[in-house]
Amino acid sequence: MTQLETPPISEETPLTDVQTAHAKAIELGQHMMRMTTASGSGHPSSALAISHIVVQLMYRTMRYDLNDPWSLANDRFVLSIGHAVPAVYAAYADLGGVIGTDKGSARKLTVDDLWQLRQQDSLLDGHPNPAEGFPFFDAATGSLGQGLSVAAGLALSARLDGIHKKVYCVIGDGESREGQVWEAADFVVDHKLHNVCAIFSCNGHGQADSVSLQQSADALAAKTKAFGWHVIEIDGHNPAEIAEALDVVGTVDKPVAIIARTVKGWGVDMMLGANFHGKPIPKDKLDEACAQLVETGEKLGATAAEAWSPESPSAINRAEAAVKVSLPSFEDAMKRAGLESALEKKKLATRVAYGAALVALGDVDKRVVCLDGDVSNSTFANMFQKHHADRFFECKIAEQHMVTAAAGMAAAGKIPFASTFAKFVARAADQIDMAAISRANIKIVGSHSGVSLGADGPSQMAVTDVAFFRSMTRVDTGGGRIGCHLFQPSDPISAYRCVELMANVDGMCYMRTHRPDAPFLYDLNESFGLEGFKQLRKGDKLTLVSSGYMLHTVLQVADTLAKQGVACNVFDVYLMPLEADAILAAARSAGGTILTVEDNYIGGLHSELAEAAAACGDVRVHGMTARRMPKSAISAAEVFTHVGVGEAYILEKATSLVQG
Amino acid sequence: MTQLETPPISEETPLTDVQTAHAKAIELGQHMMRMTTASGSGHPSSALAISHIVVQLMYRTMRYDLNDPWSLANDRFVLSIGHAVPAVYAAYADLGGVIGTDKGSARKLTVDDLWQLRQQDSLLDGHPNPAEGFPFFDAATGSLGQGLSVAAGLALSARLDGIHKKVYCVIGDGESREGQVWEAADFVVDHKLHNVCAIFSCNGHGQADSVSLQQSADALAAKTKAFGWHVIEIDGHNPAEIAEALDVVGTVDKPVAIIARTVKGWGVDMMLGANFHGKPIPKDKLDEACAQLVETGEKLGATAAEAWSPESPSAINRAEAAVKVSLPSFEDAMKRAGLESALEKKKLATRVAYGAALVALGDVDKRVVCLDGDVSNSTFANMFQKHHADRFFECKIAEQHMVTAAAGMAAAGKIPFASTFAKFVARAADQIDMAAISRANIKIVGSHSGVSLGADGPSQMAVTDVAFFRSMTRVDTGGGRIGCHLFQPSDPISAYRCVELMANVDGMCYMRTHRPDAPFLYDLNESFGLEGFKQLRKGDKLTLVSSGYMLHTVLQVADTLAKQGVACNVFDVYLMPLEADAILAAARSAGGTILTVEDNYIGGLHSELAEAAAACGDVRVHGMTARRMPKSAISAAEVFTHVGVGEAYILEKATSLVQG
Repeated sequence: MTQLETPPISEETPLTDVQTAHAKAIELGQHMMRMTTASGSGHPSSALAISHIVVQLMYRTMRYDLNDPWSLANDRFVLSIGHAVPAVYAAYADLGGVIGTDKGSARKLTVDDLWQLRQQDSLLDGHPNPAEGFPFFDAATGSLGQGLSVAAGLALSARLDGIHKKVYCVIGDGESREGQVWEAADFVVDHKLHNVCAIFSCNGHGQADSVSLQQSADALAAKTKAFGWHVIEIDGHNPAEIAEALDVVGTVDKPVAIIARTVKGWGVDMMLGANFHGKPIPKDKLDEACAQLVETGEKLGATAAEAWSPESPSAINRAEAAVKVSLPSFEDAMKRAGLESALEKKKLATRVAYGAALVALGDVDKRVVCLDGDVSNSTFANMFQKHHADRFFECKIAEQHMVTAAAGMAAAGKIPFASTFAKFVARAADQIDMAAISRANIKIVGSHSGVSLGADGPSQMAVTDVAFFRSMTRVDTGGGRIGCHLFQPSDPISAYRCVELMANVDGMCYMRTHRPDAPFLYDLNESFGLEGFKQLRKGDKLTLVSSGYMLHTVLQVADTLAKQGVACNVFDVYLMPLEADAILAAARSAGGTILTVEDNYIGGLHSELAEAAAACGDVRVHGMTARRMPKSAISAAEVFTHVGVGEAYILEKATSLVQG
Repeated sequence: MTQLETPPISEETPLTDVQTAHAKAIELGQHMMRMTTASGSGHPSSALAISHIVVQLMYRTMRYDLNDPWSLANDRFVLSIGHAVPAVYAAYADLGGVIGTDKGSARKLTVDDLWQLRQQDSLLDGHPNPAEGFPFFDAATGSLGQGLSVAAGLALSARLDGIHKKVYCVIGDGESREGQVWEAADFVVDHKLHNVCAIFSCNGHGQADSVSLQQSADALAAKTKAFGWHVIEIDGHNPAEIAEALDVVGTVDKPVAIIARTVKGWGVDMMLGANFHGKPIPKDKLDEACAQLVETGEKLGATAAEAWSPESPSAINRAEAAVKVSLPSFEDAMKRAGLESALEKKKLATRVAYGAALVALGDVDKRVVCLDGDVSNSTFANMFQKHHADRFFECKIAEQHMVTAAAGMAAAGKIPFASTFAKFVARAADQIDMAAISRANIKIVGSHSGVSLGADGPSQMAVTDVAFFRSMTRVDTGGGRIGCHLFQPSDPISAYRCVELMANVDGMCYMRTHRPDAPFLYDLNESFGLEGFKQLRKGDKLTLVSSGYMLHTVLQVADTLAKQGVACNVFDVYLMPLEADAILAAARSAGGTILTVEDNYIGGLHSELAEAAAACGDVRVHGMTARRMPKSAISAAEVFTHVGVGEAYILEKATSLVQG
């Protein structure tokens, strides 16, 4: 047992507040049970465990405007333990908070809405899902352990905006096994986000079994203390203790962790004892369960009060979306970033061009912020750090947290660029998935993509990232947005303009940059659009298509073939989803065959063009991808050869296709 | 500053051991610098920081056979901080340890081999990479924070095999920011793996900047203590303190965490001070750097000793690979698992069939172990737990750790099945990538895949997993293996046989199971092979292809069309990579058009068939995938409709294709 730092219960806490809090918890608890029974699924027991915490937060402690859940002035509530959401829905309906996908369609949530929980046309999704119309939340949760990172991102944004608000995050004991919780705990301390409050609901029950002793209330108290938090242990169903603990937030020079001992299925005998997880009360038991809860309230002297309502701060409007950003000329940006020499040499790594673009973007758009995972001198995010230090946030080696914190910042109107090695972006695959569900306007940048980095070997090489991100590129996420734009610039000029495109797209983007220097392929003032491709060579024998650093080898092959009298089309696909029609048309006029070349595994460019071509049937597509597990070699060319996309192989394959 | 638990330095430690340890560290340190300079890249400074720890472990503390690194009896060394690998290569070369991809090609590593570091034909990869011929290691590392999970897996396997050995894991301070380290720390305590020792090298320097105070030696000592470890703080360059601390492992009733204060670039003045990270000493400074190191040694009284050699345990051979496993009949397996009623109803969810298959597999193969992430009552891994409790390992809500621990168990000859919701498998995307590099023989099972789970909503729906896993299905990982086999059974009988196929494939497999009950599609004794498909309907108008639970809707459409006189082929693709020729041939005889239907995002079945067809050009392929972000709805059919693959849409699309 660690030493408690709980302040003594104040004698001033009015008893009636305790009695009325119990009454509200009892009232809402019945809603929680009734709505999950109505939907035939859900988690009433986990919701009941946080009922008193939710009552205290949403009715008394939080300052927020029920009529304007979008206001940046509001205190925020991140429900990391997403499956407990019926507790929040019940409170928000009782309070009459506003729901809707935007202000135009906004209306008040009613108690009757609760009975539509989880229905296809309901705004109340199975887990927190703001994009479907519940803007009280900032991010989709339900894949566990991510909420504290969202809270950190919200708190960082508030500080940048000079807004004094608090961010409360309720976390389950079982979910605190997720390492990301501890990445976030470190970050909150590093960045002194003392307006963040983590509340652990320790009910001791997981899904399959009890929660490990490693996640007991005692253990969580010891851990949060070791992580540098101000720790308060409370009875999570004692309204006075909850209120006192929450009042500490912002008064101490540390973030506050409240370790709340809670009861799964609190107040309802039939849910206690054996583990009652993830299922509603059967219809024929519902009245009995509600009666048990009421009886529990009576024992506690629960007394219904006049209508409570949270205190509302003055509204702060979010910046208008869809502000079109224009970057200066490439030349000016290079000079601004101190890269004049690249203009002379006419070569520069795309990762460096990214850094220069980010500097320029930071100049013209104050919403742009940057996060990195201790590799900013490799991703060249350190150029942004140098010029816009107040908007650069070091996440250290914690990619999961970095992505989710970026999503939190995006929820508050920022445009976060988050970078690390492309290989390590995969650490956050599920966090990216969750950000996509949140429609988070985040921009992820993976450097050292593909195998061209050479000597470091496969543990640093991203070869599955293209397939992963491409999978989201055809998904309609509403409002004309798609799940992801996937950028693969081949040279510094296109990389520069891809950053501009990313800033102007509303929604998630991913850009791959590469380690080696790349020669300029484009005029300094070339413009790039969302069609996704450029034609670099014209020919009548074959159509070659590639992306990124790999493209340079393909151009060499095309030039060799040209010298042999075999003229080929060459296309640079810098963006997927690709408008492939023009490439197919060009291919039809050049023998009807396309050869794609990529230094990643399958599921990328080859799939993109094969899908387009196979729907027509009059263009053949052959794909060369990394077909052998990479290993270290000194040069990019050697690794290309090792995995099967060396220059000689491409030449051989292209020649065989031309000869048919 | 936390209270130290370091035992006092014993007066019995012979001084000569200290002097000779310094001498060995000095000797090896020069190798580290020379090999990285020779390769033109690498991390000599991080390697020097662990030089004394490596000397103590590899020359004195560890019991292992230099001539048989494959022996299960050996103590193991997991280098989580993979970029420090030159330290291990130097020691292993000095000791003359055996390298090679198998015993047939084994030979002793020599000091001359070191100068080939990172070359394409070298067995010494840039980061630990056992599959390329360095079997002293059990898993590829270099993507940080994963080593302790490998160590846990190795320790669990040793316990199962009744082998008393120790597993040492060296972790960087910066990398301990990765949440997975703390997932592993919890697991080691939960499972009382007191033969695991974590050694944190705290040199205070990251890549881009200093390590956060949250990862200082003091902080790591406080954290590991809070996580329930026995903590010892030492000077990581004091041979006597290192030896004393390592001697504690196995003598206390906790796992031991050694917090070692180390110096990045130890002993070499030119690497101290400013952060010297991830780069070799320039050629023209190499002699000077080596001289500085020698001088450091002289100040410490370093004295070269007679050749040291580690103590060798008696060899324990690994189980023969490629033991063919045969499961009993489906009927017998159902009865064994208490699922007779399913035989009568002729329907069962594929996830339940998975559980039954795992029970049967556990009966016939003792190498099979099972891990789950607190959802075993959803994945039905709890059926294995019930029947084979000693081989079931609860990982709690920590998917990253689960996958890497499984890889660790596989390295010791086990066949681990690791399960969670398919959505949460993405938490471990990079860990899966690393396991693929290790050629780990792990089987990952994701339940509730696709959108058919309905009411829980998108935070529980796996829609990118097919693209991710398919990307690895065409990669040659050597020895006739491929990166991944991706199984998507549609009914319980095929699910049962897919588990058998997974057990018999050497290498990573992923299987998607589904939440809803699925009717039997196959004879109880149907057999399934690696060709990957079954034809369920024959027709001459159109060819429909699907997988998993989605297939049942496609069959309904085919039957509706058949009633309209439109006979369609229907193929069930239960495995990728798919041998697509037969499907293409059938399509050619049926109007030349294929329609694929999937309830996941793009990059799966549609890509697989489009790529095959586009290479030929005489078959058209159209794909229906989830094209809209899913949300909650009560039934699978409603979500199918919401995302664009509802029965009516499929019928409409199929009809339009038939009508041309």
